[in-house]
Amino acid sequence: MPKNMIVAQSGGPSPVINNTLRGIVETAREMDEIGTVYGGWHGIEGVLKEELLNLSEQCPDEISLLRTTPAAGSIGTCRYKLKDGQTEDFDRVLDVFRAHDVGYFIYIGGNDSMDTANKVANLARERGLDVVGIGGPKTIDNDVGDSEYKLIDHTPGYGSTARYWSNYVQMANEENAGSSPADPVLVLQAMGRKIGYIPAAARLADPNREMPLQIYLAERPVNIEQIRENVNAMLKERGRCIVVVSEGLQIEGLEIPEEFIVRDSFGHAMLSSSKITVGQMLTNALNDGKLAVKGATRCNVPGTDQRNNIIHASNVDLSEAYYVGQKAALLAAAGEHGYMASILRTDRDNYTVEYGKAPLSEVANSERHFPADWITEDGMDVTDEFVKYARPLIGDNWVSVPIINGRLRMARMKPIFADQKLTKYVPQADRE
Amino acid sequence: MPKNMIVAQSGGPSPVINNTLRGIVETAREMDEIGTVYGGWHGIEGVLKEELLNLSEQCPDEISLLRTTPAAGSIGTCRYKLKDGQTEDFDRVLDVFRAHDVGYFIYIGGNDSMDTANKVANLARERGLDVVGIGGPKTIDNDVGDSEYKLIDHTPGYGSTARYWSNYVQMANEENAGSSPADPVLVLQAMGRKIGYIPAAARLADPNREMPLQIYLAERPVNIEQIRENVNAMLKERGRCIVVVSEGLQIEGLEIPEEFIVRDSFGHAMLSSSKITVGQMLTNALNDGKLAVKGATRCNVPGTDQRNNIIHASNVDLSEAYYVGQKAALLAAAGEHGYMASILRTDRDNYTVEYGKAPLSEVANSERHFPADWITEDGMDVTDEFVKYARPLIGDNWVSVPIINGRLRMARMKPIFADQKLTKYVPQADRE
Repeated sequence: MPKNMIVAQSGGPSPVINNTLRGIVETAREMDEIGTVYGGWHGIEGVLKEELLNLSEQCPDEISLLRTTPAAGSIGTCRYKLKDGQTEDFDRVLDVFRAHDVGYFIYIGGNDSMDTANKVANLARERGLDVVGIGGPKTIDNDVGDSEYKLIDHTPGYGSTARYWSNYVQMANEENAGSSPADPVLVLQAMGRKIGYIPAAARLADPNREMPLQIYLAERPVNIEQIRENVNAMLKERGRCIVVVSEGLQIEGLEIPEEFIVRDSFGHAMLSSSKITVGQMLTNALNDGKLAVKGATRCNVPGTDQRNNIIHASNVDLSEAYYVGQKAALLAAAGEHGYMASILRTDRDNYTVEYGKAPLSEVANSERHFPADWITEDGMDVTDEFVKYARPLIGDNWVSVPIINGRLRMARMKPIFADQKLTKYVPQADRE
Repeated sequence: MPKNMIVAQSGGPSPVINNTLRGIVETAREMDEIGTVYGGWHGIEGVLKEELLNLSEQCPDEISLLRTTPAAGSIGTCRYKLKDGQTEDFDRVLDVFRAHDVGYFIYIGGNDSMDTANKVANLARERGLDVVGIGGPKTIDNDVGDSEYKLIDHTPGYGSTARYWSNYVQMANEENAGSSPADPVLVLQAMGRKIGYIPAAARLADPNREMPLQIYLAERPVNIEQIRENVNAMLKERGRCIVVVSEGLQIEGLEIPEEFIVRDSFGHAMLSSSKITVGQMLTNALNDGKLAVKGATRCNVPGTDQRNNIIHASNVDLSEAYYVGQKAALLAAAGEHGYMASILRTDRDNYTVEYGKAPLSEVANSERHFPADWITEDGMDVTDEFVKYARPLIGDNWVSVPIINGRLRMARMKPIFADQKLTKYVPQADRE
């Protein structure tokens, strides 16, 4: 008898996360071992609340359209974390598994989610439930796994956000070149609170270093006088300057007052939601009239657009996201409990990958850093080694996004939910 | 004997402004009346400084690539204004015309530029120079001409920025739907300091009003309590809300302190460059813990991306931008001094346009408003009449943008400048 599957998403979305979901659903459909695939409505919260969207009964055309439907609007995501002390939550998840004959649980997300997937499935097994727990990697930050790229080379989602920045800076360079007499400095704030893969991708716009581009990663705190000196040097040389800063960049002399910081439910400082962005603070500092040339500094804060924009998506990333989902479903069907589906680079010089598996326990306990030696000595650029690593991920072609009557044709799920068989439950952290 | 032509651009760029330039160059190339076409390097400032880029000697393939090269990086733009009192500047322009045998002057820009084009050409004629002055309309704000759309229906550039907002909000809606447990409110700040055509275009993302979308135009000041009430009502109904605000929106209770305002050389308050944006201020106000649901308000400030992004461009706008350029060159060759090339809508129900002409003197003295009756009574939406007007402008297809080795293939002009025949000149406003 086939067992059913629950798929849930956690954390911030990506442009291609739905294509991983599609890979899972379309693959599971063909596997005798897997019955109905349910989507946890807004991640683990939907599992706790027994809100399970039936993905197997959706029109196959709509599942197919998940390919070019960005972000997580179709089954939702959450930032709810199953904490170790939340025994009631864990018990509830198992109750839901039992009630819906669930034998497979795939959790798509970052490091935290891999940890959760591991714990839930292990607990289920301890309690005698035969549940295969699998992780699906996803994060635009590229911070899942290890710094040696052995567990996973890169995460689905990163390539598209990197492509976003490559495209973005190329177009911003045309703007800056054209508008420089009035607006010689353009500050662009990139996501990636702690890790620099996203701002670093701005370099992909200009691998030969022809643009007046400076990139400041959160890994390398800097002081405002140094930035001002760097910008002025560029203004004297080129008359204009594009400055990419990480949202998590610490600029000495520009400290964000504690009362301006907003924190998420993990306690992370949400600098992108803080009461003033680092991009804006830097812009204000540069607009004090002391620049080497006349004119204003402008600031763009793309924000969520860089993680929900399918038009910029990398064709390579989109394709990989699908196959990672497929791999996750295959691992599940094969009973490979405790693994994350993974992308492994098999040739560094001629980009090729294979889809493998990494133990969830190892992924959960590993931490990836942006390599210190990929930051240039002057602290305002990344090296050719980074470009070599990241260039293949942004692909070579546009993704064809269906447009009908002038609007994007997004996938639309019908609200077909599993019958609720248990009593109503309020997740522990939601009780007040 | 053919006379030479100077083309110059003024004000903020648009995604399609270079296709107007291409239309001029490719048309002028075929006209016996027109000799060399020069681009004023950074607008009228380049004319004053006698920095004239030879566009006729560029490789035709590169001119062709101007089609999908956004913003004004190729010949540059400026915010320099020839003021009535600047007699030396006007005299200098005429000297440059004489020195380079210029018989045609096309100025691409908004209302201010149409005024300048008119003055320069009239003055030239008064002084006995046979110069045909022509205007090329361009502004993403769609604020050129009259409110009855008789002089011009819409300006090139607007359709692409409108399409940007249509696409942007559709993708942001997927983000907001997916991430709503953590981030239920998404504030998006649109350009258009005084006039609401850009933020209004967010409605094109959702003409049937299915999204939890509210749109606040600068034309309708509002107080913070009203916005809070509106957002809370939406949160109670839908659990999430997308709020589009004009960068120039005045929110009572959220006044921007005078010392935070940056002004451009026209004395316009550059709210998009102010020390804190209205989007951020609104976000801070909504993040004070008094919303109807838990979670954070996020804020995106796309900034210049909405005027330099060719990937979002409207195929209709791109095409019209070209034909407006062509019309401008044809008007010049025909000696139709004192006119702006114009787009006139010939059928409201089945969108068709023709390319006509509007007297520069009338354009310079007219002012376009966003129709008051296109704003809904509750002040947080625009009407179906607006949708009917704007929908055809965003087109139905993607623009194919060349991509080579993962990067956009932008046009690259060779630095072939006209010989400087006059003494060096510092524009009046640049003297200090």
